Amino acid sequence: MSPNLCISGVSRRALLSVLAVLPALSGSLRPMPARAQTAASGATLPSWNDGAAKQAITNFVAAVTREGSADYVPPAERIATFDNDGTLWVEHPVYTQLAFALDRVKALAPLHPEWKNTPPFKAALEGDLKALVESGEHGLTELVVTTHAGMTTEEFQKIVIDWFATARDPRFKRPYTELSYQPMIELLAYLRTNGFKTFIVSGGGTSIKTKLQMRDGRPELFRLAEVNFVDDGVGKPVGINEFIGRHPIAAFGNSDGDLQMLQWTTMAGPRSLGLIVHHTDAVREYAYDRDTPFGRLDKALDAAAVNKWTVVDMKNDWKRIFAFE
Amino acid sequence: MSPNLCISGVSRRALLSVLAVLPALSGSLRPMPARAQTAASGATLPSWNDGAAKQAITNFVAAVTREGSADYVPPAERIATFDNDGTLWVEHPVYTQLAFALDRVKALAPLHPEWKNTPPFKAALEGDLKALVESGEHGLTELVVTTHAGMTTEEFQKIVIDWFATARDPRFKRPYTELSYQPMIELLAYLRTNGFKTFIVSGGGTSIKTKLQMRDGRPELFRLAEVNFVDDGVGKPVGINEFIGRHPIAAFGNSDGDLQMLQWTTMAGPRSLGLIVHHTDAVREYAYDRDTPFGRLDKALDAAAVNKWTVVDMKNDWKRIFAFE
Repeated sequence: MSPNLCISGVSRRALLSVLAVLPALSGSLRPMPARAQTAASGATLPSWNDGAAKQAITNFVAAVTREGSADYVPPAERIATFDNDGTLWVEHPVYTQLAFALDRVKALAPLHPEWKNTPPFKAALEGDLKALVESGEHGLTELVVTTHAGMTTEEFQKIVIDWFATARDPRFKRPYTELSYQPMIELLAYLRTNGFKTFIVSGGGTSIKTKLQMRDGRPELFRLAEVNFVDDGVGKPVGINEFIGRHPIAAFGNSDGDLQMLQWTTMAGPRSLGLIVHHTDAVREYAYDRDTPFGRLDKALDAAAVNKWTVVDMKNDWKRIFAFE
Repeated sequence: MSPNLCISGVSRRALLSVLAVLPALSGSLRPMPARAQTAASGATLPSWNDGAAKQAITNFVAAVTREGSADYVPPAERIATFDNDGTLWVEHPVYTQLAFALDRVKALAPLHPEWKNTPPFKAALEGDLKALVESGEHGLTELVVTTHAGMTTEEFQKIVIDWFATARDPRFKRPYTELSYQPMIELLAYLRTNGFKTFIVSGGGTSIKTKLQMRDGRPELFRLAEVNFVDDGVGKPVGINEFIGRHPIAAFGNSDGDLQMLQWTTMAGPRSLGLIVHHTDAVREYAYDRDTPFGRLDKALDAAAVNKWTVVDMKNDWKRIFAFE
């Protein structure tokens, strides 16, 4: 798969509104696995260089965990929410979920010889994202129906797990699950060590509609060709309230899709932390902000200055990016 | 408030489809507070009499936690789901959420003198549930709009917390939060002690739609007059998949609204536990099953026999019902 990186105008929202979910991967809105919890033993945030970003994090945590301080927050209210794509793991050249969808079309293609000449599938088979996006919402929805719906939740889970076992990122030639950012894994662990509950609030979520149906005398959940909820933009605060039921005091993102989550988290009054991961390292990862189709950081970068959010300069603030480095 | 207990034909689904949520109360689909986790120190399930029900629970837990056994389940997959009303706390004479809605109408009545003669509000003010239900879905929706929506999430939370601080159950004259069943609190703690994650899957949930809006320059979530999701009947498996993302191996309910959750949990193949709380104790609590408007247990009672679910006879299986006894 060699997706065209030069297309512009690929709306994350347009993609998200039709692309569904990789539950095994993102565990959206659920706590991260225990593995990460032990990663921070030893020094605090060892993969972070000393500097303003690291200092902002440790200052914030010290303030809200110090009993008696004006900023003290009891553990039950220490909620931290994280965007996933581009914040916790790589989102270029395309969102992992889109890579899954495209691979899935290829895997199913032998059963559908007509796809070679049918718009959205033709584009997917050729890795032509520009044409794919031009097929419009109808085309993308059709792609999702085919790749993310029409089976039980158990069947889909197996498909996703199997895909992760063999799929490799085109640049790093590694499983997608290895492309999480080591400094962020450490940050998650550091927050949990300090009594926070951490949640992933991802547009690549689980929110495709399901329906209970009987099959062979057993009730099973079937995935319908309908998106339930788009966990991006204004959807993030809505989803946090719906799934977590508490107002975060810290929020972490990297793109305009995280703007409202960061605003809602940091503009409530009490001490809070807003942080944006700025992709500035084309050598070790990628460099992009205002002009990328995936993970565009434009309004949220302006808002960061206004709201005094911490902006992480990946190139300078992160000692290493991946655990495998 | 003296609700009429004699109405029949009050559909739980009809009520649920328009009644929204008490987040502070039910913590639906979120883990129970830590208080319960320490309740089981000492003897196992001390408020349970020895008998088939208790034995079924301890046998199941022993089987799925014994490494090497054919029924062994790793901790991450030990998911137990609990209905709330009638399973964890009292649902008679009416669901606590309905009691809240009726009290809320009374509290707001001075601002709305016209309510005295306006159908759903008139019925609410007079505690005339029969008339209330006869006002139909339109009437009940209007009641909900007034009592559960039209404010921010923070404002609503405060209203609910304030209500709980003063509201008293009409029979026991105690705060509603004291009307949870001690044996079930112990069961929750016992399961967690054995590596389970426990979730409350309640129709009295948080699922009213919200919308992010700016007010005084700050983004806030406003509660809209629209129900997002009905977590009852077929909605319970759907909600469990959406919010928890794992298939339960144990499910606990007390009414037909729990039927599909119990079927989905226990008919999947691997060893599981389905349990129904049967209200058989009119002296200490209430006795009802097939003929009650609130918490009707009819189809699920028949299904219990077919599926070999454990049916708890409250009168004989529970040594005590409430912590305050």
